[in-house]
Amino acid sequence: MLKLPGLIDPHVHVREPGQTHKEDWDSVTQAALAGGVTMILAMPNTKPPIFDKATLNLALDAAKQKARCDYAQFLGAGPDNADKVAALANKAAGLKMYLDSTFGELRLDDMTLWMPHFEKFPKDFPIVLHSESRTMAAGILFAAIYDRPVHIAHVSLKEEILLIKAAKEKGIKVTCEVCPHHLFLTKPSRAERSGSEVEAGGRAEVRPRLATKEDVDALWQNMDVIDCFATDHAPHTLKEKDSENPPPGFPGLETLLPLLLTAVDDGPFGAAQGRLLTIDDVIQKSVINPRKIFKLPEQPETWIEVDEAAEYEIKAADQFTRCGWTPFEGWKVKGKVRKVVLRGKTAFEDGKILVKQGYGRNVRQ
Amino acid sequence: MLKLPGLIDPHVHVREPGQTHKEDWDSVTQAALAGGVTMILAMPNTKPPIFDKATLNLALDAAKQKARCDYAQFLGAGPDNADKVAALANKAAGLKMYLDSTFGELRLDDMTLWMPHFEKFPKDFPIVLHSESRTMAAGILFAAIYDRPVHIAHVSLKEEILLIKAAKEKGIKVTCEVCPHHLFLTKPSRAERSGSEVEAGGRAEVRPRLATKEDVDALWQNMDVIDCFATDHAPHTLKEKDSENPPPGFPGLETLLPLLLTAVDDGPFGAAQGRLLTIDDVIQKSVINPRKIFKLPEQPETWIEVDEAAEYEIKAADQFTRCGWTPFEGWKVKGKVRKVVLRGKTAFEDGKILVKQGYGRNVRQ
Repeated sequence: MLKLPGLIDPHVHVREPGQTHKEDWDSVTQAALAGGVTMILAMPNTKPPIFDKATLNLALDAAKQKARCDYAQFLGAGPDNADKVAALANKAAGLKMYLDSTFGELRLDDMTLWMPHFEKFPKDFPIVLHSESRTMAAGILFAAIYDRPVHIAHVSLKEEILLIKAAKEKGIKVTCEVCPHHLFLTKPSRAERSGSEVEAGGRAEVRPRLATKEDVDALWQNMDVIDCFATDHAPHTLKEKDSENPPPGFPGLETLLPLLLTAVDDGPFGAAQGRLLTIDDVIQKSVINPRKIFKLPEQPETWIEVDEAAEYEIKAADQFTRCGWTPFEGWKVKGKVRKVVLRGKTAFEDGKILVKQGYGRNVRQ
Repeated sequence: MLKLPGLIDPHVHVREPGQTHKEDWDSVTQAALAGGVTMILAMPNTKPPIFDKATLNLALDAAKQKARCDYAQFLGAGPDNADKVAALANKAAGLKMYLDSTFGELRLDDMTLWMPHFEKFPKDFPIVLHSESRTMAAGILFAAIYDRPVHIAHVSLKEEILLIKAAKEKGIKVTCEVCPHHLFLTKPSRAERSGSEVEAGGRAEVRPRLATKEDVDALWQNMDVIDCFATDHAPHTLKEKDSENPPPGFPGLETLLPLLLTAVDDGPFGAAQGRLLTIDDVIQKSVINPRKIFKLPEQPETWIEVDEAAEYEIKAADQFTRCGWTPFEGWKVKGKVRKVVLRGKTAFEDGKILVKQGYGRNVRQ
């Protein structure tokens, strides 16, 4: 039995307030615990988005009542809320800025709208950027100019990881996270079809999009540049995913650790494909680094126990997330979370959640 | 009579080789001289583009035979010519990189393709970037990471000039140029129509696009951030501009100086609109700074004489450019180039070109 610290997932879409048919603070924290995750950082693009005191309270009230694992809530940067969110910084996980154009009310198309946030948000709290490709480069330039740390969400491209590497070497304060789906899946292709591809269509829709094998390989080859693993857990129901207008996003909390452990174990999608990962990498990138980057408190008397030898198939039917599907359906993995102890209490054991709603704590309180 | 040094235009599309029905080394250098410009830097996106030794020689051979003013030729960065262009650096004006997606064979969509050029092109020769908005920010990040100067072509947006200002303050080696059309024209609008707007349709098509009044105002308010004026002289025939698929681009060599001098003179589009410009600004940004940035030699015994008091209407019919139109048709301006002396010889006087084809020299030779 492998004993690990409780994992931290710095990128989770809780869907509450506003879309609790997809997920809520109860179901998402159950999924977290079942996945060995004892702390989640919640993204602000809910309905309404979390962008001022009232909406922050809306999210935190729901979390306080329902959450079963620990958490903090991100604030979202909007075109005119820089002062407001800066004043709320110490109550939040940090500031999330959506710098690409697909995200509704928190859109920040014009770079002049980025400036007040970089000027005003306290430098000792993180700014997380959804920023793809050259937009990511622009975000890193802002980090250099304003001399403050930024954290790049869900890196997926070779050009991104190579540029982050170069920026780090130059001393620019940039960290980054990578999602399992960008490490284990490539974009659907008609030309070839291998085990790492998902079916085309709505179930393959995710932002950033699944990338090419060259991109995936570059992520693995630059594992030392990756600071954190993050799920970008973004649940949508299967009905929504299979609809005419499938929303982008995958659930991920319950598949994070088994996928990583199977790679560690030299499994079919690990070292056998030249993809090297160690248990220490998992601990660094899922516990130590996120704690450091996001200035999160240690969780005392908190650990998870994993049966490294347990082999099984991933099945959506076994999951706690409300969304009812997974892009990894049927994948054979090795390594199963048996027990999660959170702050001295067994929170999960042998497939059962053992702590009540409200047990989770806001780590920014 | 105002006496000025011969102007340098660092951004000219000569159209030769390949599209001499629009312009060639003869007509473009006549237009330059008539505009008071004694040195032009020629862009590489000709047909074929100038991207290796053979194509560079193609352009330089034509220039040697036909040019009437001095010149240098840019090399174009392509997906796989970083070694080749680096080896040719001392024969060229510099390296031009087209980082946005509208420019055919010299496309460099993926940032991994930028890296070899930034690594290999000698740091004492300029890299000029066509890079708009956040792509420009990405380009400036590359300047910071590779610790080498970049020059941003045709800045047109408020977000661009403000970010360049911030990057300069941070010590990043970035310079920039602005085109008269981005200083004097705003994008066509149905809602309002003022003297500074051009008709919508093909004749308004230019890249970067004409911007909003807020953008134009920001350029004027940050005149001290602008290193150079450049025309981006990009001639297309009137037939092409009025066609179904109008190519983007304006001629500009013959309207550069009268427009600037009319602004200096407190004319209708100058100080009367809060737009402050001095003769010294013109000399700095059209002579001193381009010479310094592009490491161009002084032109001995070279000057222009301008009748400051001469008022007249801009008319395409009076121009030497082959394209046969101007977006400033009918504009009332003040300040007319009467005489141009280039290296001791009167090259232009009272509307007549007085030097022969081949008088122009390659300043990189």
